[in-house]
Amino acid sequence: MKVLIIGGVAGGATAAARLRRLDESAEIIMFERGDYISFANCGLPYYIGGEITDKGALTVQTPESFKSRLNIDVRVRETVTAINRKEKTLTVQKADGSIYTESYDKLLVTPGAAPVKLPLEGIDAPNVFTLRNIPDTYKIDEFISRNKPKTAAIIGGGFIGLEMAENLKRRGLEVTVIEAAPQIAAVLDEDTVCDLQNYLVTQGITVKTNVKLNSIGETGCDMVLVSVGVKPESELAVSCGLETGIKGAIIVDEYLRTSDPDIYAAGDAVQIKNFVTGGDGYVPLAGPANKQARIAADNIAGGNSTYKGTQGTSVLKVFGMAAAATGLNERAAKAGGIPYDKVFLYSANHATYYPGAEFMNLKVIFDTTNGRILGAQAVGSGGVDKRIDVLATAIRGGMRASDLCDLELAYAPPFSSAKDPVNMAGYVIENLMTGKVKQIHWHQVDELTGTPGLQRIDVRPAEAYAGGTIPGAVSIPLTELRNRLGELDKNRPVYVSCQTGLNSYIACRILTGHGFNAVNLAGGYRLYDSVRRAKNN
Amino acid sequence: MKVLIIGGVAGGATAAARLRRLDESAEIIMFERGDYISFANCGLPYYIGGEITDKGALTVQTPESFKSRLNIDVRVRETVTAINRKEKTLTVQKADGSIYTESYDKLLVTPGAAPVKLPLEGIDAPNVFTLRNIPDTYKIDEFISRNKPKTAAIIGGGFIGLEMAENLKRRGLEVTVIEAAPQIAAVLDEDTVCDLQNYLVTQGITVKTNVKLNSIGETGCDMVLVSVGVKPESELAVSCGLETGIKGAIIVDEYLRTSDPDIYAAGDAVQIKNFVTGGDGYVPLAGPANKQARIAADNIAGGNSTYKGTQGTSVLKVFGMAAAATGLNERAAKAGGIPYDKVFLYSANHATYYPGAEFMNLKVIFDTTNGRILGAQAVGSGGVDKRIDVLATAIRGGMRASDLCDLELAYAPPFSSAKDPVNMAGYVIENLMTGKVKQIHWHQVDELTGTPGLQRIDVRPAEAYAGGTIPGAVSIPLTELRNRLGELDKNRPVYVSCQTGLNSYIACRILTGHGFNAVNLAGGYRLYDSVRRAKNN
Repeated sequence: MKVLIIGGVAGGATAAARLRRLDESAEIIMFERGDYISFANCGLPYYIGGEITDKGALTVQTPESFKSRLNIDVRVRETVTAINRKEKTLTVQKADGSIYTESYDKLLVTPGAAPVKLPLEGIDAPNVFTLRNIPDTYKIDEFISRNKPKTAAIIGGGFIGLEMAENLKRRGLEVTVIEAAPQIAAVLDEDTVCDLQNYLVTQGITVKTNVKLNSIGETGCDMVLVSVGVKPESELAVSCGLETGIKGAIIVDEYLRTSDPDIYAAGDAVQIKNFVTGGDGYVPLAGPANKQARIAADNIAGGNSTYKGTQGTSVLKVFGMAAAATGLNERAAKAGGIPYDKVFLYSANHATYYPGAEFMNLKVIFDTTNGRILGAQAVGSGGVDKRIDVLATAIRGGMRASDLCDLELAYAPPFSSAKDPVNMAGYVIENLMTGKVKQIHWHQVDELTGTPGLQRIDVRPAEAYAGGTIPGAVSIPLTELRNRLGELDKNRPVYVSCQTGLNSYIACRILTGHGFNAVNLAGGYRLYDSVRRAKNN
Repeated sequence: MKVLIIGGVAGGATAAARLRRLDESAEIIMFERGDYISFANCGLPYYIGGEITDKGALTVQTPESFKSRLNIDVRVRETVTAINRKEKTLTVQKADGSIYTESYDKLLVTPGAAPVKLPLEGIDAPNVFTLRNIPDTYKIDEFISRNKPKTAAIIGGGFIGLEMAENLKRRGLEVTVIEAAPQIAAVLDEDTVCDLQNYLVTQGITVKTNVKLNSIGETGCDMVLVSVGVKPESELAVSCGLETGIKGAIIVDEYLRTSDPDIYAAGDAVQIKNFVTGGDGYVPLAGPANKQARIAADNIAGGNSTYKGTQGTSVLKVFGMAAAATGLNERAAKAGGIPYDKVFLYSANHATYYPGAEFMNLKVIFDTTNGRILGAQAVGSGGVDKRIDVLATAIRGGMRASDLCDLELAYAPPFSSAKDPVNMAGYVIENLMTGKVKQIHWHQVDELTGTPGLQRIDVRPAEAYAGGTIPGAVSIPLTELRNRLGELDKNRPVYVSCQTGLNSYIACRILTGHGFNAVNLAGGYRLYDSVRRAKNN
């Protein structure tokens, strides 16, 4: 069997290696138009920031190592210019311009994705960059070393843009992140990104949202990084007539086979099924790309592996903060037409009595009809990746809220609490679903303000209340509530808030036990205030 | 409804709080014979070591806070001396010796467990301690401050003993851990505990295994901590005729109800079902105790919650190392009669090109008939708790090896790799189950040594080979293997090793592709050598 692979980065290299392990005798040729294969694309920002100092660390595999370890013929600086499906050949152009054809029995297409280019005036200026590969990285690094820019604008506040904000700041630049949407980090919802956005300000990063530029010059910065997402590099696939879908991504079946049964595709160029909704999507991420590549290789070698969809699990570190997400966010749940609600926990990553505990804002989105976990997001300084990985696993397993309650996670004071934040999320959802408590959300607070007869109480200690509260809330500390029930009117709902939503839940249970109609503010004053501050930044 | 609760630590306090939230009007009385309720028992070693300096941090809840927040009548320093089931009353003795009775509609028994006392000569000497509660903690702390001991022996190498080893060392003592069994940390298998044991030696802790003492004096140490496990404090339950089982633990059904339908029990005094095998067990852990307490409270309040068993998820930090486990270890798998095998990964906690990557030894035990994940253990400096939590969730979800392959976990270079170690474990198991590779284990190496015609190769680079190898292994570096196949005999198995089991797997695939019968050494030379060193320490 002769297998050709177009593209030698994450997907192509993974598939080639797996294919060799499955078939020692196959002829495998991998074409990469660039200079490097299998490089550490996710590490590039850290090379620029100086956290990674060894160039060699970015290029773990080389054409030579692929030959000696895997007996794979890697052809760098050769560009595939056409897929000739009828002849089952590729047309290949060498660096010297000469052209040849190569035949295949099976073809794997892993071209990846390219940065979206904005139609801005000045986009081609020498101080404007994108970051996708190793030459991009060296260009940025050399520009900074030589030109010593003082200010940088990052156009696009996605995860790579934010990683670069940290790393350019590390290089001593004043950094402004400019985002056209109302918020940065679109995988997060407004009520989780708020903490991240407020934190970035404390780290000296200027974040501008809702800003649509016409020209690069408007940034007023010495250098500009454009990081507004990627699009599939599917031109070859399109021109040979393979079916494509969202954003031009190549359509594949669960076996990663394209509309041509002898051509497979994987990685950032393919359209995927959303694992949670079953709908079509385009989610270019390294983890899924690697998994797809391995599955494609299995099937090329005659196996029977299937890819069951992408759930968009991702994580960002920026300075000392982490933000992570898995499954559906609210926009996706709405788009999928799924009836959902959400809970918020403000939980410590480990026992608070053990030094170094850090709180995280954990949001879990669930299906209100059956308690199925649809998605989760977390922002905080420690243990964020762990909780999102546990929830990602729960989502993969089709778990419901009650299953989160039952999860038996590793507890010792340096690692967690006897009730892990994920267990707590299950408890809160169960309490909602069994009617033990009702809740409203931060965005309903201002909608309700001004309603005639609105009855609001804040059950935090008086000192906390003095520092700011929900509009119109009266202070009744939790410890006084049972003795002050007479101050409240049973004929009107009592909206209860505290700092995080936990003590107010206890207050709601007290009120309910005494015949009141109590409603808890999810996430408490802390979340309400964080969203407001993020908007006003 | 009137509910009495015997015991005010983890289980009792959790149940009381939940019960109040479910029933505002119930009369709830909690009896605690000690001075403290709901204290941070898992934090006690760190107070002794000085990492926790605030006494108040250990006692988050007090009788006063339980009264003011939860309207619960907490009676400390009152000892329940009898449960009178027929009358549905308790006999209670106050600190002044006076006795009274208190009636109940429902009773919850959460007495916890007490340290096992060894029948050693000198066990009652003033320099011999156990550590289970706050008075124990203060006693040890004061002894060290006043008597300035130079040497400490810890009898029992369980998790608490090892935590104390670190914390006594922090106080400047020379520490020896003395364990009667052949290894410390019995929840781990010999081939994961080895790394922990070798590490402790580098931290200046002396570890003696297989040592059975007759007297405290044999330790020759200035102070001794006895930490050889706990037994249920079920005397009250026994004397009123409740059914008990393993180690005298109280038998409860899935609703946490004892053999008396008006009496519930939870926490370290109850017998549990093993979640993986369904068999009976005794696993005293804080996480399960808290979950059981909440479920018992739900049912006392008329709900319908069930406890689905304990899987023994636990984690230990000792100096800079973590060890964690979930589900079955090999002894438990054997005892359960489940056909199993195991895989070993030596994986970095995050991308190796990002600074600070640390390797962990990850072991996953699976059912060879269907690939179900039975248990996992990990030892390493970073990310150990995360992987065990993910695997604990997978076990809860009944996942199989192929599900581990599919898990979509959060990846960015500071947190993981595009293929997380848990994904890798799934891949290795799948390769075994689909016959792509055969493996032997470290303990089979010495069994095979000396077999006539034994054909062993070590595929590491020559420099690694020069530093030590498997007995009789010939050096054929992986990159030379395809050219040196002629040196091997196809009629005999080829046993292949490398450093960790990964390159030798690739070698096995090459050999298989050329018609050899290849067998991989799981965990590689590293694991074989680590177990050997741990035994010789």
